[in-house]
Amino acid sequence: VPDSMPDSMFGHLFTTDELFDATSDEAWIEAMLEFERELAMSLGEAGLIPVSTATVIVEGSTSLRLDATDLGRAGRRSGNPAEPLVRALRKAVGPEAARAVHLGATSQDVVDTAAMLVSKRAGALILGQLERACDAAATLADEHRSTVLAGRTLLQQALPTTFGLKAAGWLVALGESGVQLHYVLDRRLAVQFGGAVGSLACLGSDGPRVLDILTRRLGLACPVLPWHADRVRMGELGSSLAVVAGAASKVATDLALLAQTEVREVVAGEGPSSTMPHKRNPVGSVIAGADARRSAGLASIVLSSMAHEHERAAGAWHAEWATLTELLRASGGCVSAVAGALCDLQVDPGRMRDNLDQSNGVLMAERVVANLAPDLGWEETSRLISTAVERALEGSTSFVDVLAEMAPIAELRTRRQLDELCDLHTYLGAKDQFIDRALAAHRRYRDG
Amino acid sequence: VPDSMPDSMFGHLFTTDELFDATSDEAWIEAMLEFERELAMSLGEAGLIPVSTATVIVEGSTSLRLDATDLGRAGRRSGNPAEPLVRALRKAVGPEAARAVHLGATSQDVVDTAAMLVSKRAGALILGQLERACDAAATLADEHRSTVLAGRTLLQQALPTTFGLKAAGWLVALGESGVQLHYVLDRRLAVQFGGAVGSLACLGSDGPRVLDILTRRLGLACPVLPWHADRVRMGELGSSLAVVAGAASKVATDLALLAQTEVREVVAGEGPSSTMPHKRNPVGSVIAGADARRSAGLASIVLSSMAHEHERAAGAWHAEWATLTELLRASGGCVSAVAGALCDLQVDPGRMRDNLDQSNGVLMAERVVANLAPDLGWEETSRLISTAVERALEGSTSFVDVLAEMAPIAELRTRRQLDELCDLHTYLGAKDQFIDRALAAHRRYRDG
Amino acid sequence: VPDSMPDSMFGHLFTTDELFDATSDEAWIEAMLEFERELAMSLGEAGLIPVSTATVIVEGSTSLRLDATDLGRAGRRSGNPAEPLVRALRKAVGPEAARAVHLGATSQDVVDTAAMLVSKRAGALILGQLERACDAAATLADEHRSTVLAGRTLLQQALPTTFGLKAAGWLVALGESGVQLHYVLDRRLAVQFGGAVGSLACLGSDGPRVLDILTRRLGLACPVLPWHADRVRMGELGSSLAVVAGAASKVATDLALLAQTEVREVVAGEGPSSTMPHKRNPVGSVIAGADARRSAGLASIVLSSMAHEHERAAGAWHAEWATLTELLRASGGCVSAVAGALCDLQVDPGRMRDNLDQSNGVLMAERVVANLAPDLGWEETSRLISTAVERALEGSTSFVDVLAEMAPIAELRTRRQLDELCDLHTYLGAKDQFIDRALAAHRRYRDG
Amino acid sequence: VPDSMPDSMFGHLFTTDELFDATSDEAWIEAMLEFERELAMSLGEAGLIPVSTATVIVEGSTSLRLDATDLGRAGRRSGNPAEPLVRALRKAVGPEAARAVHLGATSQDVVDTAAMLVSKRAGALILGQLERACDAAATLADEHRSTVLAGRTLLQQALPTTFGLKAAGWLVALGESGVQLHYVLDRRLAVQFGGAVGSLACLGSDGPRVLDILTRRLGLACPVLPWHADRVRMGELGSSLAVVAGAASKVATDLALLAQTEVREVVAGEGPSSTMPHKRNPVGSVIAGADARRSAGLASIVLSSMAHEHERAAGAWHAEWATLTELLRASGGCVSAVAGALCDLQVDPGRMRDNLDQSNGVLMAERVVANLAPDLGWEETSRLISTAVERALEGSTSFVDVLAEMAPIAELRTRRQLDELCDLHTYLGAKDQFIDRALAAHRRYRDG
Repeated sequence: VPDSMPDSMFGHLFTTDELFDATSDEAWIEAMLEFERELAMSLGEAGLIPVSTATVIVEGSTSLRLDATDLGRAGRRSGNPAEPLVRALRKAVGPEAARAVHLGATSQDVVDTAAMLVSKRAGALILGQLERACDAAATLADEHRSTVLAGRTLLQQALPTTFGLKAAGWLVALGESGVQLHYVLDRRLAVQFGGAVGSLACLGSDGPRVLDILTRRLGLACPVLPWHADRVRMGELGSSLAVVAGAASKVATDLALLAQTEVREVVAGEGPSSTMPHKRNPVGSVIAGADARRSAGLASIVLSSMAHEHERAAGAWHAEWATLTELLRASGGCVSAVAGALCDLQVDPGRMRDNLDQSNGVLMAERVVANLAPDLGWEETSRLISTAVERALEGSTSFVDVLAEMAPIAELRTRRQLDELCDLHTYLGAKDQFIDRALAAHRRYRDG
Repeated sequence: VPDSMPDSMFGHLFTTDELFDATSDEAWIEAMLEFERELAMSLGEAGLIPVSTATVIVEGSTSLRLDATDLGRAGRRSGNPAEPLVRALRKAVGPEAARAVHLGATSQDVVDTAAMLVSKRAGALILGQLERACDAAATLADEHRSTVLAGRTLLQQALPTTFGLKAAGWLVALGESGVQLHYVLDRRLAVQFGGAVGSLACLGSDGPRVLDILTRRLGLACPVLPWHADRVRMGELGSSLAVVAGAASKVATDLALLAQTEVREVVAGEGPSSTMPHKRNPVGSVIAGADARRSAGLASIVLSSMAHEHERAAGAWHAEWATLTELLRASGGCVSAVAGALCDLQVDPGRMRDNLDQSNGVLMAERVVANLAPDLGWEETSRLISTAVERALEGSTSFVDVLAEMAPIAELRTRRQLDELCDLHTYLGAKDQFIDRALAAHRRYRDG
Repeated sequence: VPDSMPDSMFGHLFTTDELFDATSDEAWIEAMLEFERELAMSLGEAGLIPVSTATVIVEGSTSLRLDATDLGRAGRRSGNPAEPLVRALRKAVGPEAARAVHLGATSQDVVDTAAMLVSKRAGALILGQLERACDAAATLADEHRSTVLAGRTLLQQALPTTFGLKAAGWLVALGESGVQLHYVLDRRLAVQFGGAVGSLACLGSDGPRVLDILTRRLGLACPVLPWHADRVRMGELGSSLAVVAGAASKVATDLALLAQTEVREVVAGEGPSSTMPHKRNPVGSVIAGADARRSAGLASIVLSSMAHEHERAAGAWHAEWATLTELLRASGGCVSAVAGALCDLQVDPGRMRDNLDQSNGVLMAERVVANLAPDLGWEETSRLISTAVERALEGSTSFVDVLAEMAPIAELRTRRQLDELCDLHTYLGAKDQFIDRALAAHRRYRDG
Repeated sequence: VPDSMPDSMFGHLFTTDELFDATSDEAWIEAMLEFERELAMSLGEAGLIPVSTATVIVEGSTSLRLDATDLGRAGRRSGNPAEPLVRALRKAVGPEAARAVHLGATSQDVVDTAAMLVSKRAGALILGQLERACDAAATLADEHRSTVLAGRTLLQQALPTTFGLKAAGWLVALGESGVQLHYVLDRRLAVQFGGAVGSLACLGSDGPRVLDILTRRLGLACPVLPWHADRVRMGELGSSLAVVAGAASKVATDLALLAQTEVREVVAGEGPSSTMPHKRNPVGSVIAGADARRSAGLASIVLSSMAHEHERAAGAWHAEWATLTELLRASGGCVSAVAGALCDLQVDPGRMRDNLDQSNGVLMAERVVANLAPDLGWEETSRLISTAVERALEGSTSFVDVLAEMAPIAELRTRRQLDELCDLHTYLGAKDQFIDRALAAHRRYRDG
């Protein structure tokens, strides 16, 4: 019955339908069968089995219906789901073709190659979401080049910056986070085919030739060697997924902070709260935050499971399967949630300006100090400006007015000079150059 | 269709059917409905709603059928699955009773209490498996008190010990690992009921009374305060599950090492290998090893998600749900696999003795050094014994024969004294006292 | 030269001087020597070596000066620092007493017992800081029982609560986080003494008696068995330290959020910013946040290193030493930073009230909905109140004024009734009862 | 006094002297001063300060002696060590030049750039050790092309393979693990220079020009934008270090397993055991195993600390410093220990052959099954061979002799055919082709 589907609930909450499906039991089983299918065709192409036998295997595997729960339970005896799958496939194709099924291969070849195929497809979905997030960030960066808001360090207003420069920072982080994942998907997801101990013993000297055909047919990268006990690929894949989630979680964090009731510089989501209609819950950020936390922890499982014993590990290999499944979902769910939040973002430039003005202009203290220090000396300037900042924060007088009333300062600078010094809009440094650099890098990346 | 059930395959491979079911979507949904049901009954008992209304809610929630995928998808908007569940329940009970549904509660109350209920039930299954593992270890400890085998440090034979003492070590580790989990299940799994910000605002001064009734009805512990943003419980639960898996993984590692082809002191599993019938794959250890690796990583997600913001976290809370589900499965799967391996263990005392004899008796070097040093001085003794060890390891002469042929030693000790010094069976220290201590502790623990 | 002391810089930045010293190389070396000293005295007390020899060893170990770098370098050959330490001690006491040095023990006995001694002392410092933090939280809880501020969920203002109730939540979390650590320090830090394979072989049947004397002398717990390959203790210690840091990091996060420029309900630190004198950096929270992140990750190393091979692990044991050192520092540094921040906290009740008023009273929507729904029906009420919330948020009219102007509502409730419904101070639920429960629990805990 | 140097003991035990020094407090302080020095020179080159002032700063920073403990303690107030360092530098250069010190920069610029410089230097040492390990693995792969040993899956002998092919697997894993680290060191370690909020506000439009000069002077990569709150670089660096350690730990695990007393196919280390002279502790593997466990956990801290708030994180940034220091040491220590073990490895081909022969030739069952199945049918063949395997394992008769005595088999195959089928040396698949591929890839990589 549909309501007993395990792990659909949190599964669907924290990732997209597409990613859930691309990493489902069905997707894994299909990828394992695809390995067997293409292996049969490769053996046929290499002349090691009759093409007609290969065709029987292809047909048998295509019509085979396997129950995931049964495979899991059977796998408790063999230690992996490929062994019962191969048994079922052999049974399905009849005794004649059965001998050619899985020829030269071992269970790990099936599961590892399936992991690569699943990752390749799920990974492409993740990169698609990342591109969507980058595009949205690029639009924000360009549109809000001059939308002034407070730059905040340690959660304290520090200096003015612009929302465009902030979004440019998101853009670069998101874009660069995908470089390594793209590389791994494209160059490092390799077919695994080595037989029991990695020598392709039962294919004699034909092994590498079959490996090459199989590689071409599956559209994966060709490994230098069978990599059954070399988990560099898995470490790279796992950590590149966590890095993408980490980059997206930075954006999610910023959005949730900007959306706080007391800040409300953006509205990032419309999570319904029937009992509290005034809330604008940043649900995308929330989901992304959960996914990113999970991604980092799941990646650590992969990274701490790289020491595989001899020619097949007794546990470390097996720890990868569910972990990779969850990691693809979590990192992709994270990026997707952030992409959605950026696309729907409502920006409130007025509120940004209001929040800056709350501090009565004291954010310009750095500039004023730098300007006055040559004349007044560093210590005296620091003392004066600290006093001015305190007065401005305590009362309702603006920072520039306080400065203008301080004798040692008024003697040195005209009111107009002070007004210029305290003008937020002229203290934004290289924001336009930096935004342009970010947009140019984005275009380069998109155009390949 | 059954074959598309997500996450059944790895789910069932790495845990028991009972644990899979106890942590399934269905179990979570049922636990959430149970919260609503018992909350209604508690409100009725407290006189805050009519008992008849409570009954309507109980009946409505009992017959309600919810689709987990739908809840997950709806949860993407609200950020949690409780919000759509409550909506569905309100709809199911009709407009009259709807107002009493979820009264005083917030979504986090539902999900957190459900997490406690799910953990309590799954945790009991895990403790049951742990007891099974302990019983098996106790039997081995008692039966093999005097079965001599090599004690190994850094994977090198060091001194003789007995398989009983080794099993006693497993027994104590497994038994003590459950103490903290038992405590957490019994005393720390508390009902969560605080309303939107933890004050039970809309129940006025009646809140704590309803909390007490609800606590009693649900059979959970009563918290000092609503703990929505205090995740000490989750940290304790997560880490106690990882500790149990860690203790079990030590046993799994030992079994896999003892079962190695070249050691073969135990047979721990019969994983079928159709193409390699000579293999005796330690599949239980393999599954336990995978589960333990996952448990440690999953626990780290819980431990690194304890900094919840204000009265409800924006992500750190949400990271707990799937993580806890997987952690219960993985740690329980680990213990169960080890329990099964211990129950079915075939011990080969002859092979243990043979492996010891491979080194021609040099393991007794420590004792001989200690015995001769007072007479020959430390340095001279060390030099002599190192030479003797080398000779015994190189050739086919036993260590005691080599010693007997060395003049400085032969002058000081009779052949009979040397034979006694080199007798493995009299160099087992306090193994019986230690085994008795372990068995006594096990009995104390079992008898509560 | 002092300026080349390694790891002093980040070491001191992120923990207290006391904790740094309690976990320094010197502390480790002293604890290892203490093991040897008390072992000699125990052997003397048991009549296995002359008391005069024990005294020579005590004196030799007390005056011994060891260079930590040299021990580390020498340890690269033996795999641990105890082996060169024992060699040096033997040399220092002369050939006669040398034979009695380390008698019955193995390197792991030295390092493991030293780890327990170091943890016991450092742990006591951590609990002391935790008590300091709890006391400060208790004071805040009591003093600010009725200081109204916004309760915030998902970083959105949700309902009013009081700062006292918030501080009571911190108090309970901090207090309960220490329970497990206290238990571990008190009951689980056990002496390790088992000889090469855990049988105390070379002491014959005297082993357990020496173990008991040694346990008493060192003031540690007595293990059922030597626990060289049973790492449950380390798992418990590591995770209880991470839980304490996790609880403290929740407080740190809240303080940093409350201290934000736009919120400024507290001032939590005075980090100097020479160029930005207006900033009030929440440095304690920042340090605590860093320490908590590190604590969770370091604990995961301990939890994922529990599968020790046979009678001594080939790597998993060795991973514990530096990790435990850093974990004691990080978790203690976290608690200390939070304790400091709480002690020095400046609370601004006026600003809390102002921030609540920013939303023009819409936080009371939940209460108004609950009050009107019986008369107007759930859907109609929801619709009306959503409209009212929007109006109040958009304009300058207060929520209660908007309500009073809505005909269907004005017909049902008098202005006075509406004023009462919208009075924040009467919608604080059971805050006083809850605060009293928290303070009572704190007193119980403090009084033992 | 030298013996109180903190963290030297474990520091030196688990890494090389070179790596310890390259990541010491002194190295960090020198890198921070280098940033200030080169910033001054860049400002001078850009014409923003007099070159003579830059020279004064260079000289002042060169002769400046700072106490790491003092910096750490002072850093508790400011939250970082750069602030007191800059204060000290300003004081050292006199009031005139002080104004030009640190101009345009913020504390994070100093610490982040120093982290890059420290990582670049330490990373080069790690890559050097990795090359050493690869060279040793390549030599083993070539020399032992035909040295037959058991391939082992799940720690059970599976099929014969050769030690050369095994070493080729190590070679490829080690070599490929360095690709990402090399890329990160070369292309991703970028200068950080953005001022308080990343706009280089106080340099006006000159900022990017100074950034470019500074980049050139420091020999680091140029970022698209200041990356103060974009931690993709740190995630990439941390995980690439963990991947390298993970690859090395696979080799360490294999060596420790091959060196087991009962296997003893290699001797991998000579750790002294004064009381047990027969042991050959694989100390290099032990240290590498500890380092790899720590590396994975430390990397997880970096990966879970990527969500930096706004323009500077309140804790997540600060968690990186000590973590990165330890991670560079641990991953480098891991690779170095493995390199040393491979260079000194003693291989025992005779023992490898003996271990294979222990199973009386049953490892060839897979081949025999495949050969007979076409004639006897799959099921009948499986049944027959299982029986034959059991007989060979139980008794002292070799597998080929058992086969020759089984009537259905003897009818189909001559003794000579059976001898050929059971000859291990002709069932090694494509081992030579694969070894050649690995060696060729290694040469390509070395030649750039």
